[in-house]
Amino acid sequence: MDYRISDKFKTMKPSAIREIFKSLGKPGAISFAAGNPSPESFPAEEMGKIASDIFANEPVTALQYGITEGYVPLRQLVTQRLARVYNINSPDDDTIIVTGGQQGIELTCKVMCNEGDVVICESPSFIGALNAFRSLGAKLKGVPLNEDGIDLALLEKALIENPNAKLLYLIPTFQNPAGTTSTLENRKAVYELARKYNVIIIEDNPYGDLRFSGENVPTYKSMDVDGRVVYCGSFSKVLSAGMRIGFVRANKELISKIVVAKQVEDVHTNVLFQMICARYITEYDLDAHIEKIRKLYAHKASLMISALEKYMPDCVKFTRPEGGIFLWCTLPESIALSDFVAKAVESNVFVVPGTAFTPDEDEVTYSFRLNYSMPSDEDIDKGVKILADIIKEMM
Amino acid sequence: MDYRISDKFKTMKPSAIREIFKSLGKPGAISFAAGNPSPESFPAEEMGKIASDIFANEPVTALQYGITEGYVPLRQLVTQRLARVYNINSPDDDTIIVTGGQQGIELTCKVMCNEGDVVICESPSFIGALNAFRSLGAKLKGVPLNEDGIDLALLEKALIENPNAKLLYLIPTFQNPAGTTSTLENRKAVYELARKYNVIIIEDNPYGDLRFSGENVPTYKSMDVDGRVVYCGSFSKVLSAGMRIGFVRANKELISKIVVAKQVEDVHTNVLFQMICARYITEYDLDAHIEKIRKLYAHKASLMISALEKYMPDCVKFTRPEGGIFLWCTLPESIALSDFVAKAVESNVFVVPGTAFTPDEDEVTYSFRLNYSMPSDEDIDKGVKILADIIKEMM
Repeated sequence: MDYRISDKFKTMKPSAIREIFKSLGKPGAISFAAGNPSPESFPAEEMGKIASDIFANEPVTALQYGITEGYVPLRQLVTQRLARVYNINSPDDDTIIVTGGQQGIELTCKVMCNEGDVVICESPSFIGALNAFRSLGAKLKGVPLNEDGIDLALLEKALIENPNAKLLYLIPTFQNPAGTTSTLENRKAVYELARKYNVIIIEDNPYGDLRFSGENVPTYKSMDVDGRVVYCGSFSKVLSAGMRIGFVRANKELISKIVVAKQVEDVHTNVLFQMICARYITEYDLDAHIEKIRKLYAHKASLMISALEKYMPDCVKFTRPEGGIFLWCTLPESIALSDFVAKAVESNVFVVPGTAFTPDEDEVTYSFRLNYSMPSDEDIDKGVKILADIIKEMM
Repeated sequence: MDYRISDKFKTMKPSAIREIFKSLGKPGAISFAAGNPSPESFPAEEMGKIASDIFANEPVTALQYGITEGYVPLRQLVTQRLARVYNINSPDDDTIIVTGGQQGIELTCKVMCNEGDVVICESPSFIGALNAFRSLGAKLKGVPLNEDGIDLALLEKALIENPNAKLLYLIPTFQNPAGTTSTLENRKAVYELARKYNVIIIEDNPYGDLRFSGENVPTYKSMDVDGRVVYCGSFSKVLSAGMRIGFVRANKELISKIVVAKQVEDVHTNVLFQMICARYITEYDLDAHIEKIRKLYAHKASLMISALEKYMPDCVKFTRPEGGIFLWCTLPESIALSDFVAKAVESNVFVVPGTAFTPDEDEVTYSFRLNYSMPSDEDIDKGVKILADIIKEMM
């Protein structure tokens, strides 16, 4: 039959990255395309012990319906950790648990935006968030991302030109896909613009714990005097991605709306893993565990940067992240990105073309994203060399 | 600050039931308000064993990102079970895993409806679904539910009067809240009306496995020759509610859109519990387990019906479910429902007023929902007596 699909979903496409992820697993494939944390970052043994104990002693709490806001001990622990680590501690705010950071982003847009309202975001930006906004009928306005953060002049221009902009979506720390971190000066200026034009900032910070060099930069949420920052965090990159546990901290009024929105999406987040997270934080040393992941990613990132320096021709530019799991390479304009990506696939090396990350789907880009958390040390060197050889051939 | 909440969420309220659920736990409280399965229905020991084994042998699969469509072995097992138990087996259809049946319902509406499109539903109906439709800007049109199913004449009238109706949302088996099951004749006639007026049927069947008397009635999905039925199922009532595992079976084209919609909501459903479900089905006897739950609920339902027969004055009507976890009581029109519910709360007995289940929020109702899966045998008798005494006093 001829399905009368909604206007918004008629044109929605699956995430290019998730599609690439599905096609992986070919023998010998080297993937720099994932957004996955290293499996070494999952404290599987400890989580398994906690799970056994919960199944033995509190199975009903774990297996019965829970409340939409989340498992109370975990909410408290997240709140305490945000205060201690990120100086996020306004008494007007509340913390809820969501089914991965993705859900926090999607719910915030759902609660704030009417169809046609504008979400301003960095260009490039995280495809999962961009598609969430699109799926809700919001219009995207991309503003170029510079090394020090979103372009301030163009951000103000976008705010002036889009009076129905309600949200400013930012990944200020170890940005996905760019790997860059915005400076404190940039953040202060952006926050003032958000005040001046009365927009809410979604601060998406899934990688914030993963700094391996440089100095911490205060979060937007820690500077938030108005209650205009919705902070979205996640345990995906420090405990487990498959368990789908994220959290949102925002003003109580916004949180109460987000709770209603969550209730009709999935009632509540998986209880067992909320309990596992809470007990892991209480009984083990999450900070020490994160320190191990940082060391691992420092090593992987430095391997990738060394390989890029060694193999890539000078005309290829790349960012040098101080944390997180991605870096961003830019080809010279003489090379067509789609041809390069196709040749890489032929050579069994997978990268994500920058076109996946542009808020404006027609924007021309010469960049691609490289992930260093998943590939082996050997594959990092080997894969970068293959990419460099392809580029040299195309020059 | 003054938040510019979206038009849809300005007026959205949390589910009355979830709110009641939060206020429970008072000492001595008797709750008939829950929608929870009995904790005895969770095979906690077996699930715990499987979980330990997965943590020991396949932790990375469980803890890493999965694909949006769901864990492949579970999708296959669900597909096989739907074919075997419910005769659902069109090769044009596909099965995906969702984060509880709730998500399947919400995603289907998201994919199908523009704002202002109409969803026709039974009145009364499941508040979680009604709120999901409201949250997406769909308009609700309730059609009275009779003992044998939705009122056919009024359904056709609603279809004629609402040419932008896209969805017909039905819980045909052990309906929530009414406890009734629509007849085969009613289903056939409803399906023909859906064809005539070209609407998609969402068949919500979370209780279908829980029949404890009477004869099975074929599902809409098993009669679906056009691919117009979206079947939403769940493991919440037979394995665990807290794990949030549901599934959707529908035409491949619709499923591909639902997958895109799910991807931006929560990326994928918790992997560990998808694996636990798959292994439970493979290594244990789910049918035998369900048979135990049926016996338990047959016992609980019969206790509640006996108590209602024994204590309630004749002017109080109630349904006699052949399965599921709810029954539906109707007061004489001389008694105001809200006064009755308030007096019940004063007496520490909790029921859900019918007003929570009306698609039209101004509809007057004299009915309330009773759950028998959660309360103890003793509390069923005691609580029904308290309710009956209140009614007698109010007459």
